[in-house]
Amino acid sequence: MAGFLITFEGGDGCGKSTQITKFVDFLKDSGVEYLCTREPGGTEVGEKIREILLHSKADMSPETELLLFSASRNKLVEDVIKPALEEGKIVVLDRFYDSTYVYQGYAGKLKVEDIKNITKFATNGLKPDLTIVLDLSYDDAMKRKSKDEKLKNLDRIESKGEEYHRRVRDGYLKLAKENKKRIVVIDATQSVEEIALQIRNVFLNKLRKKK
Amino acid sequence: MAGFLITFEGGDGCGKSTQITKFVDFLKDSGVEYLCTREPGGTEVGEKIREILLHSKADMSPETELLLFSASRNKLVEDVIKPALEEGKIVVLDRFYDSTYVYQGYAGKLKVEDIKNITKFATNGLKPDLTIVLDLSYDDAMKRKSKDEKLKNLDRIESKGEEYHRRVRDGYLKLAKENKKRIVVIDATQSVEEIALQIRNVFLNKLRKKK
Repeated sequence: MAGFLITFEGGDGCGKSTQITKFVDFLKDSGVEYLCTREPGGTEVGEKIREILLHSKADMSPETELLLFSASRNKLVEDVIKPALEEGKIVVLDRFYDSTYVYQGYAGKLKVEDIKNITKFATNGLKPDLTIVLDLSYDDAMKRKSKDEKLKNLDRIESKGEEYHRRVRDGYLKLAKENKKRIVVIDATQSVEEIALQIRNVFLNKLRKKK
Repeated sequence: MAGFLITFEGGDGCGKSTQITKFVDFLKDSGVEYLCTREPGGTEVGEKIREILLHSKADMSPETELLLFSASRNKLVEDVIKPALEEGKIVVLDRFYDSTYVYQGYAGKLKVEDIKNITKFATNGLKPDLTIVLDLSYDDAMKRKSKDEKLKNLDRIESKGEEYHRRVRDGYLKLAKENKKRIVVIDATQSVEEIALQIRNVFLNKLRKKK
């Protein structure tokens, strides 16, 4: 496929949304064709699935949740991502299947092997060309809080606790080790501008190699 | 588990609904505790998934469909079937995962291996104690039509054609061969009463062995 798929990953409070906004601004300024989307949702069926996931969460087993997420993912891949890639667009995704491995697998209760099988089926084998993991320790996420009280998601970090944050972080680092070519880990303690610059450099480098 | 799970399978026009009604009547008369349900649906989340499946069918890939079906199946197994079995009830299901193997696998375009992985995950390994397959050739299904024009689903048989009916039938016979202990094939050209009697006998025999 002619396009390029870049995904952003990381634990709560790592600054992912800020970096996606900056990266999309960079794409806009470059004048390239791009598409930025997120899961679950992005299609008519996906939005209905999103509704179920959001409104029935308390009543949902991790298995049902994974299957619903995967149904929405399949729809998004087939109807939105693949056509955009075929048109040569840069596709930016806020989380993709790595999140599933980390949150439902390493930090959750589902077996990684099951997630692998279902993900492969749902994505029909589609893999990102590049995945950015914004890496932040629990302590640094906490330090950030005192610096910037407005930072979203911090209630969630605190409520889940240090142990959970550590499992999520370790999960991402494990995935990065297993997918050295695809996943690039970036130290999220750096300044917003430093991080944005690194992401652009990694992206341009990868894009050049692909063409 | 103390209960007993019996599922009914077969191609369109095989007389499945009639036999389920007769079997449930027999359970009622026997005074045993039972539960009769069907997929997709049977739970709040399942009903919402059913809505999506019924109203977005034209816009659905076989992969999305399988994942949505499996999400509904997982919910039904965990919230309805397992608890009923634990209470010692006889659970009667109008179609279960064998239908998925046959319709989406053997007669559809999905790989049996994928269906296997996802089904095992969705059901958490739960298998029926007994599966009744009502077996009918295409010719016999057609003959039936002339006998009983009111028989439901015959438009569907005709529209899909002989080749499709044959693939469905062969799929069920293949499954039966691979699961000799669980699946019992019954000749659906016999009279309604003959078939009902055979089903009761097979069921009572299996139930006795399980206790």
